[in-house]
Amino acid sequence: VTTPPVAFVGAGPGDPELLTVRAVKRIEAAEVVLYDDLAASGPVLGLARARAEKVAVGKRAGRPSPRQDAVSALLVAYARTGRRVVRLKAGDPGVFGRLDEEIAALRAAGLPFEIVPGINAAAAAAAEAGASLTRRVAARRLQFVTGHDVDGRLPGDLRLSALADPGATTAVFMGKATFPALAARLIAEGLPADTPALLAENVGAPDRRLDRGTVAEIAARLAEAPPSGPCVILYGAAMGPGEDA
Amino acid sequence: VTTPPVAFVGAGPGDPELLTVRAVKRIEAAEVVLYDDLAASGPVLGLARARAEKVAVGKRAGRPSPRQDAVSALLVAYARTGRRVVRLKAGDPGVFGRLDEEIAALRAAGLPFEIVPGINAAAAAAAEAGASLTRRVAARRLQFVTGHDVDGRLPGDLRLSALADPGATTAVFMGKATFPALAARLIAEGLPADTPALLAENVGAPDRRLDRGTVAEIAARLAEAPPSGPCVILYGAAMGPGEDA
Repeated sequence: VTTPPVAFVGAGPGDPELLTVRAVKRIEAAEVVLYDDLAASGPVLGLARARAEKVAVGKRAGRPSPRQDAVSALLVAYARTGRRVVRLKAGDPGVFGRLDEEIAALRAAGLPFEIVPGINAAAAAAAEAGASLTRRVAARRLQFVTGHDVDGRLPGDLRLSALADPGATTAVFMGKATFPALAARLIAEGLPADTPALLAENVGAPDRRLDRGTVAEIAARLAEAPPSGPCVILYGAAMGPGEDA
Repeated sequence: VTTPPVAFVGAGPGDPELLTVRAVKRIEAAEVVLYDDLAASGPVLGLARARAEKVAVGKRAGRPSPRQDAVSALLVAYARTGRRVVRLKAGDPGVFGRLDEEIAALRAAGLPFEIVPGINAAAAAAAEAGASLTRRVAARRLQFVTGHDVDGRLPGDLRLSALADPGATTAVFMGKATFPALAARLIAEGLPADTPALLAENVGAPDRRLDRGTVAEIAARLAEAPPSGPCVILYGAAMGPGEDA
């Protein structure tokens, strides 16, 4: 079995111990690493060889993001050089990582690739909080949504009836700016305002912070003072105390 | 930072390369490993020390499963010995792993624990299929459900309107026996019968098999000849060919 020259690698929440063994191997072997965000990828990027070329392709504080098709074109250009390329993506590359667009570009160019999955932020946040994402009877559906559209706004096509279900566990990715508006719509749709919620900031980093509260409380906290770091918000019965807690 | 004596460890899909680095450390350091299923955990269990005590607590072919409260009691009993205990769970321990019940038992006994997340079967299946779980615009909600209840039947409280959404990616865990019935209900609820689907069997193992088709086709295939190994079924627009495919 030969390894394809391009690997999409899940960086997980940012803690190198939460990389998969295969992810470590691919990063250590890489001649080129394309990454999005130095703040999130720093410790993971440190596993790459000193002489590997490290290319920032994502948004950095205060600067506009490159367009996705420019990122895809850059990935194709590096892949064509025949060097071993790692495309590092936060969390799991298949979860809100725009992986589909970069795959399409490689396919169109006839370039083989592999995907090395990663620990998504919701799984990492729940683990840090000592909670299960699902709960017998009370939370038997788990769903992930993104809190912002390509232009940073709340997506217009949210299926509110699916999201306003206190019997599911819902993880909102990239939602720190839009969650107050989303929470208001969910409560109007019937989600109890006191549904248990968890706000996890900087998951996987030494300065991570976990706040528990109700959906209404977490929304109010975010409206007052949005955290500076990346956040994931989880809500649903599974985020509350257990039967024996 | 001291490591709690009990670690819930995500075994991922079963390929030791898809364990996290921390999971490998915990398994290698364990004095006791409680695992569910030898078929699924074999290669991962092989990382434990030869002298570690390995205890099967889950269902094995042809024998009834121990009751969950007996498993929880056993975990508490081992934890009380003060030995380093790993509770190995397939995939991510927080996703349909009944982790909530074992956590509650440890909490009630005043025993500390940590959770080491793992790669869930849906992420592993999509990665093996070269697909993203989400897709820009077309699939911006990702949801996981279980295809069987504690007694092996389709759960009675499924939110069909949430599941019959072709614009979400839905992963059905443990659904090989019940998916034909679920698919019929989803199609009656409005899910197009030709929604793209992926049936992944034995993800992470050398004999893994990926079948693509429509929801109706995958349901028919499962009704005719249910595979013998563990399966995850994914459906939604993201499982279809991309714009450039």
